[in-house]
Amino acid sequence: MPRSSDARANAVASTARLLQEQGYAATGVAQILDVSGAPKGSFYFHFPDGKEQLAVEALRLAGAEVEQGLRALAALTASPAELVSRFVDQQVRGLVDSGYRRGCPIATVALEMADESAAIRGACRDIFDSWITAMAEAFEPHLRAQARQSAEHVFVAVEGALLLSRVRRDPGPLRATRDLLVSRLRDSA
Amino acid sequence: MPRSSDARANAVASTARLLQEQGYAATGVAQILDVSGAPKGSFYFHFPDGKEQLAVEALRLAGAEVEQGLRALAALTASPAELVSRFVDQQVRGLVDSGYRRGCPIATVALEMADESAAIRGACRDIFDSWITAMAEAFEPHLRAQARQSAEHVFVAVEGALLLSRVRRDPGPLRATRDLLVSRLRDSA
Repeated sequence: MPRSSDARANAVASTARLLQEQGYAATGVAQILDVSGAPKGSFYFHFPDGKEQLAVEALRLAGAEVEQGLRALAALTASPAELVSRFVDQQVRGLVDSGYRRGCPIATVALEMADESAAIRGACRDIFDSWITAMAEAFEPHLRAQARQSAEHVFVAVEGALLLSRVRRDPGPLRATRDLLVSRLRDSA
Repeated sequence: MPRSSDARANAVASTARLLQEQGYAATGVAQILDVSGAPKGSFYFHFPDGKEQLAVEALRLAGAEVEQGLRALAALTASPAELVSRFVDQQVRGLVDSGYRRGCPIATVALEMADESAAIRGACRDIFDSWITAMAEAFEPHLRAQARQSAEHVFVAVEGALLLSRVRRDPGPLRATRDLLVSRLRDSA
């Protein structure tokens, strides 16, 4: 049996993946325990507020990974167009390599729970804002006062393209969105 | 008790609304019966394949309403920019007037069920394509060979903006997306 701190971290990481693939309502505590290998007795010890608390932690973990990925890419790229191009290519790979199971790790739960849980809606809003801020900070030297608005347009287009690519099981919408965003960013830089 | 055909239609319409507000997994047959007032005994008579069959019919009903709304707006408007501006304004009103409960009637279920049900994923894909086609046909006299690609970009941006506006409880992202799309369509027309 894993140490207690490992069991807790495993439960959070396993939940992040389940929420990404199937959403909140379909992800039961029994499945989380089964996938993460955590003993049932420890669940409410680690997560006294239950599944909602665990979901917020799992979303934050997944959100932080995307934000760190964006900041790492920003450090490696020379322009907003290059950053967006490589970020969208990562999304294409994540979606295709998972057999179209893994799109945005936040959007499904955000839509399901927007009216049901203020804690989950607030976490999703903060995570989306952290991604937009990471992009806006990378855009700022190039796009100045337009940086935040441009980052928000990129976010919106990539989320919509992830939805359409997932439902079609086709990377085409993500690639077309990448090309449009790159050409628009090149024009405005 | 309503006539049988009314009971069936009520169940489909009630389900469309529940799927829009809370998604598939959270919508149980008991709640559908409760909200639609249908007698429990008739459910599997009307929907022998159960909740999945009812959900596909409900999504098609909601999808057809959006498609008809787009075609009606296209007949009333003189340009792609005007069509998109008025369509996004309708989305803003639908979202705000419902207290941010009613965003896209398809996206939540599409993301939840993309890997779980081929029937639901296929229905969502066909519905999204029907909206894109309705817009592309309206754009065609103005944008010629670019009509379908432009319609797909509009779809993607509006879906992403509906997500962000819903999670923020703020029409700002939808309005900013409308303004960007309108200015891009004016430039290319």
